[in-house]
Amino acid sequence: MRRFLTSQAKGLVDHTTRRQHHKSPSFLSLLTPQSRPLAPLSSLSRLLSSTSEMAASSDSTSSLPVTLDSINPKVLKCEYAVRGEIVNIAQKLQEDLKSNKDAYPFDEIIYCNIGNPQSLGQLPIRFFREVLALCDHSSLLDESETHGLFSTDSIDRAWKILDQIPGRATGAYSHSQGIKGLRDTIAAGIEARDGFPADPNDIFLTDGASPAVHMMMQLLLSSEKDGILCPIPQYPLYSASIALHGGSLVPYYLDEATGWGLEISELKKQLEEARSKGITVRALVVINPGNPTGQVLAEENQCDIVNFCKQEGLVLLADEVYQENVYVPDKKFHSFKKIARSLGHGEKDISLVSFQSVSKGYYGECGKRGGYMEVTGFTSDVREQIYKMASVNLCSNISGQILASLVMSPPKPGDDSYDSYMVERDGILSSMAKRAKTLEEALNNLEGVTCNRAEGAMYLFPRMNLPQKAIEAAEAEKTAPDAFYCKRLLNATGVVVVPGSGFGQVPGTWHFRCTILSQEDKIPAIVNRLTEFHKSFMDEFRD
Amino acid sequence: MRRFLTSQAKGLVDHTTRRQHHKSPSFLSLLTPQSRPLAPLSSLSRLLSSTSEMAASSDSTSSLPVTLDSINPKVLKCEYAVRGEIVNIAQKLQEDLKSNKDAYPFDEIIYCNIGNPQSLGQLPIRFFREVLALCDHSSLLDESETHGLFSTDSIDRAWKILDQIPGRATGAYSHSQGIKGLRDTIAAGIEARDGFPADPNDIFLTDGASPAVHMMMQLLLSSEKDGILCPIPQYPLYSASIALHGGSLVPYYLDEATGWGLEISELKKQLEEARSKGITVRALVVINPGNPTGQVLAEENQCDIVNFCKQEGLVLLADEVYQENVYVPDKKFHSFKKIARSLGHGEKDISLVSFQSVSKGYYGECGKRGGYMEVTGFTSDVREQIYKMASVNLCSNISGQILASLVMSPPKPGDDSYDSYMVERDGILSSMAKRAKTLEEALNNLEGVTCNRAEGAMYLFPRMNLPQKAIEAAEAEKTAPDAFYCKRLLNATGVVVVPGSGFGQVPGTWHFRCTILSQEDKIPAIVNRLTEFHKSFMDEFRD
Repeated sequence: MRRFLTSQAKGLVDHTTRRQHHKSPSFLSLLTPQSRPLAPLSSLSRLLSSTSEMAASSDSTSSLPVTLDSINPKVLKCEYAVRGEIVNIAQKLQEDLKSNKDAYPFDEIIYCNIGNPQSLGQLPIRFFREVLALCDHSSLLDESETHGLFSTDSIDRAWKILDQIPGRATGAYSHSQGIKGLRDTIAAGIEARDGFPADPNDIFLTDGASPAVHMMMQLLLSSEKDGILCPIPQYPLYSASIALHGGSLVPYYLDEATGWGLEISELKKQLEEARSKGITVRALVVINPGNPTGQVLAEENQCDIVNFCKQEGLVLLADEVYQENVYVPDKKFHSFKKIARSLGHGEKDISLVSFQSVSKGYYGECGKRGGYMEVTGFTSDVREQIYKMASVNLCSNISGQILASLVMSPPKPGDDSYDSYMVERDGILSSMAKRAKTLEEALNNLEGVTCNRAEGAMYLFPRMNLPQKAIEAAEAEKTAPDAFYCKRLLNATGVVVVPGSGFGQVPGTWHFRCTILSQEDKIPAIVNRLTEFHKSFMDEFRD
Repeated sequence: MRRFLTSQAKGLVDHTTRRQHHKSPSFLSLLTPQSRPLAPLSSLSRLLSSTSEMAASSDSTSSLPVTLDSINPKVLKCEYAVRGEIVNIAQKLQEDLKSNKDAYPFDEIIYCNIGNPQSLGQLPIRFFREVLALCDHSSLLDESETHGLFSTDSIDRAWKILDQIPGRATGAYSHSQGIKGLRDTIAAGIEARDGFPADPNDIFLTDGASPAVHMMMQLLLSSEKDGILCPIPQYPLYSASIALHGGSLVPYYLDEATGWGLEISELKKQLEEARSKGITVRALVVINPGNPTGQVLAEENQCDIVNFCKQEGLVLLADEVYQENVYVPDKKFHSFKKIARSLGHGEKDISLVSFQSVSKGYYGECGKRGGYMEVTGFTSDVREQIYKMASVNLCSNISGQILASLVMSPPKPGDDSYDSYMVERDGILSSMAKRAKTLEEALNNLEGVTCNRAEGAMYLFPRMNLPQKAIEAAEAEKTAPDAFYCKRLLNATGVVVVPGSGFGQVPGTWHFRCTILSQEDKIPAIVNRLTEFHKSFMDEFRD
């Protein structure tokens, strides 16, 4: 891993110089550019110098056939800040901390960069894991000891699921869309949630939501002339996927002043601007609850969005993976399908894809890579193409499929697990709400920082009014001011957050994304470290 | 699912008519074209007529924004026969059998189309499933009853694996390449297999081998000017992935007469021909043991292939997922990395990617979607791009990661599970060898059919010398002669095999792929049905 740091600085600078003039202009260039060379931060220089174990350095291996110049330029163009440079630095620091504890003013790295709850100590929901274990090793179901070890409803559920799997073969490839019986359960869960029918044949089970997003991008994007309307700020899976599939990201800006409001007038403006440049806009991405912004859309706003898509002939790509993460009593999650059906728009009126994942919610089962998309309002011949794409990869992993059915059909009142399940679930959600509130208040107490409330999702996205001197210092190091701030923060405190430039932001504004997932007993330390660091940063650069 | 049949016939015919003239010529067109419209086989017509529940038919939904004309043409171009038309028909027949048992001359569908052992009754290896269950629900490890239910080495292994996972969090996203400790185990397994060092930092864990293949294709292919040398016949993942990523498939033909021999002269000829057409050939795909062809390459042949790649500056993409499936005493699996290192070619001499999967071998854990690629001989800056691509999808599923480490490090002599593990393993492999032999002999007994032996992998790929009248009858139904044969076979016997045209074959020759995975007690019935059908088919069409 050591090789990543220097080569990233080196490779990307080379690449920028060599490639920039070949590129056709794209809407991505509308976004705030993120300077990529690594800022030479003091305590990192020692790490950066030790790259001797690099297996094949660029210099000495000119005979190897693949070079940055010869690979797919779309790959070069793609960026994914959530696991980008800052995280690479953090991983190196963490490694170095083991042997050089005294070299740093902190004793651990605190990862607030990614929505990965169980990596920070959140425990899995017991019922879900019981069912997975029984399905994995189903001969347990024949043993009498099992009844002492597992809840009765997990045993019943495991039997039910095994009966849904042809031949009870959990080790077999399933139907390309996922096991039919599990899709029945998921469809029933969607119906119960929305009050409108859901068809199991509309469900495509996927390894987390990411492959589903890629599949839709691959379907819709033929060239840079095809565009996707994306919120700015956005979750960088979207920009990365659009770049990888060679389309154009058409940005629409969320309004920070109104709590990251989504204005139809802004959508119209950006759509028209894109069209005037010869871009055919194919779809609108909406992330609700918002990532990285944490807002929950109002119902009437959602109605306007649905009508806008219908009117403009756009596919609505609804990222609804945070549907269980709503923390404020005045907001409620409504699926876009429910909204569309409430408005009377059926299968023939609007093309709508809803993405769901087992990685989020109160369960946070990121490592299981389960998820699905519900695909409605496509003609049968286009649907068949989506099916074919799913078939090329055979199927998603069966444990993830089972888990997706479980989160859409958790224990019910009267079930053996119900009471303990509710304690686990409510404990996690209420603690997340509390942590969001504490961090939001702490951030709003910092000089020059304003932070909208996290109504939902797992993130805060504070805005920093950085002093001119700090901006100049960043520029001198050829780094974006927010990235400069985040690297300083990491270096001083061990706290990892992601610069706003990784998500996109209104040019000239600076943010970072911080998760609300650290366990409660760590929050005071995070607040203290952040507060202290921010004060000294501002003192250093105050105009 | 009902919608697929008619729409496939309809949609694809439309598409062929509409699209054909837009397409740039590609090497795919060198392959035997597979006529796509559905042959109107008698007992299917009833099924085909009942499509009334189609949610959104093409005719009635002209207001929907996405049409076959507006989607990515690369998606249209992609084909995947292993789950293509024949399987769709089979699934419909299976559904219909439930209520119309008397309408068919068979009482079950026998799937010989796909390497999916557990779907046909193969049981999972107990040790692997014990470890997975303990990792999924690790609080079992604290219970005394667990010692009665699980082997002591599965308990030890689960503890070891949990200790390798940061925070023991099996529900967390891992490092983008996979959990470091598991990669250590895999690298040690590769070293033990090859006798040459392996670096855990070269391992990228993936959800089965397919996403790894896609990743490499995405990296290497920028346009139709980039080509990949692929065997013909080939596993259609390769043609599908090349089509999806917009490159050109440069075919090289395996020599059926010499047991599907891979001739360097053929590689050279096809490479030069491609170059003369302005194609930059980026990589050579070798599948060893072969799919669909079942041959195991000789060591000296592998040496020639490695030297050819080094000399011509090609990345060697080695599909080695059947490395444990070798059935003949005169052949042995050698990894291409071992061959390259034996020849003295190191990290700086040859770019080599080896694909491995938990779906194959004696374990056949297809549903777990585990696998890895070992990436060697790439410069650090290119490696970083591969790492970035892996990061966009966060990580592969942790159960699949664990299983990949287990298959590369199974129980050892002295372990509690060792004896029973060996019985399971050897039982499966020797039974596969026996089934391969029985089916091979039966196929060679059919009039006009010749079949090379299955030295390895999971398939037989017999060649049929079809009567001219059968070829004409197929042409009259606008279907390829081998597809015509396979559909007739399905319709008469319920046996599902895949036409050779789905894999590519020398023009004018006709084959099908049949797996060797049906359980032993079903083999006599398959042989009988096949023999009877073939005789009546030949009688009907004999010249």
